[in-house]
Amino acid sequence: MAGEFSIIAQFFDRAEARADIELGIGDDAAIINLPAGEQLVITTDTLNAGIHFPDATGPGDIAYKSVMVNLSDLAAMGATPRWLTLSLSMPEPNHDWLRVFSDNLFQALKMHQVALIGGDTTRGPLSLCVTAFGTVKPGTAMRRDSAQIGDVIAVTGTLGDAGLGLQCALHQRALNRIEHTGIVMSRLNRPQARVNEAIALREYCECAIDLSDGLASDLMHILKRSDCSASIDVANLPFSEVLLQECEEDERIALALSAGDDYELCVCIAPEKFEAAQKALRAIGSPLTAIGSITANEEGPEIDWRKSGHPYPNAKRGWEHFV
Amino acid sequence: MAGEFSIIAQFFDRAEARADIELGIGDDAAIINLPAGEQLVITTDTLNAGIHFPDATGPGDIAYKSVMVNLSDLAAMGATPRWLTLSLSMPEPNHDWLRVFSDNLFQALKMHQVALIGGDTTRGPLSLCVTAFGTVKPGTAMRRDSAQIGDVIAVTGTLGDAGLGLQCALHQRALNRIEHTGIVMSRLNRPQARVNEAIALREYCECAIDLSDGLASDLMHILKRSDCSASIDVANLPFSEVLLQECEEDERIALALSAGDDYELCVCIAPEKFEAAQKALRAIGSPLTAIGSITANEEGPEIDWRKSGHPYPNAKRGWEHFV
Repeated sequence: MAGEFSIIAQFFDRAEARADIELGIGDDAAIINLPAGEQLVITTDTLNAGIHFPDATGPGDIAYKSVMVNLSDLAAMGATPRWLTLSLSMPEPNHDWLRVFSDNLFQALKMHQVALIGGDTTRGPLSLCVTAFGTVKPGTAMRRDSAQIGDVIAVTGTLGDAGLGLQCALHQRALNRIEHTGIVMSRLNRPQARVNEAIALREYCECAIDLSDGLASDLMHILKRSDCSASIDVANLPFSEVLLQECEEDERIALALSAGDDYELCVCIAPEKFEAAQKALRAIGSPLTAIGSITANEEGPEIDWRKSGHPYPNAKRGWEHFV
Repeated sequence: MAGEFSIIAQFFDRAEARADIELGIGDDAAIINLPAGEQLVITTDTLNAGIHFPDATGPGDIAYKSVMVNLSDLAAMGATPRWLTLSLSMPEPNHDWLRVFSDNLFQALKMHQVALIGGDTTRGPLSLCVTAFGTVKPGTAMRRDSAQIGDVIAVTGTLGDAGLGLQCALHQRALNRIEHTGIVMSRLNRPQARVNEAIALREYCECAIDLSDGLASDLMHILKRSDCSASIDVANLPFSEVLLQECEEDERIALALSAGDDYELCVCIAPEKFEAAQKALRAIGSPLTAIGSITANEEGPEIDWRKSGHPYPNAKRGWEHFV
């Protein structure tokens, strides 16, 4: 059986073209040249088998998703992604598994010209810890604490698809049309970090978060950090054709608010800039949908859920670990 | 039971004094200002319960060691440590455990003025993934590929103590004196990253590695990357009083070569600079012991093990995961 170092050499030490890497895989640490005058943006996320993905998830999906959820965090800051480290724990090294895993890892990295610069491979329950690095020009990051009263709250893409995909993956749900199952499972297992959208949006927007836990939970992070409240009209939430055909209205709203794993961006934009931002996203083939607005606190940060203007009491809290 | 976000707020979001942090814990990612003209050095290491530490290891030791093994990798590059992220997976959040864990984490960080800038807390088998960041002036990093034929090979501190500590921790071994057990268990559970030694050594030295797997295995990484061989005289290996009193000579040599976990530095230094390097370390109270020299390859990278000049056939391979 191959050792740790041969696993790294065989599967993970692939030549990278980035000129900003002084020293990549193979030493005690990597050495990076940051673009002059840019700030470093750092995020890290762990994915554990049975917690963040069902045990039956294939190695290609695991690899792909582990990259994308981290690039999604960089996108939420408006950062240009550049480098990534991977720490992989697995019970036994299996070369077929590693081949598929690493091929898909590099496929996801190449979509956004990100280089794997280091990591480690060790024995343990299946788990991936990815740390991703990007850069922004000083002062241009989209931060959770920068929402302003009156801002339009908007989201990219469509919401709730990954949540329905998880129900399918766990065999809790069969869809009416088999091709729908493939679509929502793909949204669950192959999320697309909104990197290009973020780079377009950062020209117009100072505040963003990515939707990993569901809109209800994730939007509250913005409200707490920015010390404001929000009014959201669920009638404006963007849904895919699949959800429109497969789910009742309340169910798809619940998926959007609390199922998570969509990895769309939720942004707060000054009203006078919203149209230009929407146009900039349209130019790269991506929708941007206004769903509400930032309001002043009454007692503390809260979300006033509405449906076509009327109070909507069914809104649910998003998923939070350990609750 | 507290949720993920309250765990972070209660135990990990402690005010940091570093002026180079633009945005720390609490957003999708951290934002860092790198010192102008310095290169970024990045390393990551995962510690899994039952693999990297015995299941009975206490939370304080786990936290302390997870910081130090990563700072040790930065030290091996000659980098000044600055920031760190922690991804913590645990089966159930236990507040007593988290209190001791986080107190010891920050104790280790403060020893070297390192700031925790982010991470995540999630459910899963007990595992820590730490990514540590430092900086070096361009061209000054100590790299594995920079050994030169004729270099003196030297090590900091004493070797083999942690290996004996592991035998005690696993109840494979009882020492003659009880206070010896405390000393070697402390070497195992509270390793000291040679940060200050590295910063002193980088003036004199272009090539280093930290001893995590044992001298035999770790030195080979230098030899392979630098395309050279080595001659080591085990009679010169530095041992603590504990190992001198508790172990037969061959046993303590075996611990030094293959037990690992010492986190001392192994450096290659031009002979004319060795005395000055040794003096610089003496000035900070740290020994530097010459144990051999870099030689030309005959057939490929190999270590010629000697004892007082004679061939020493008992040298063993270091620990390698999955072998």
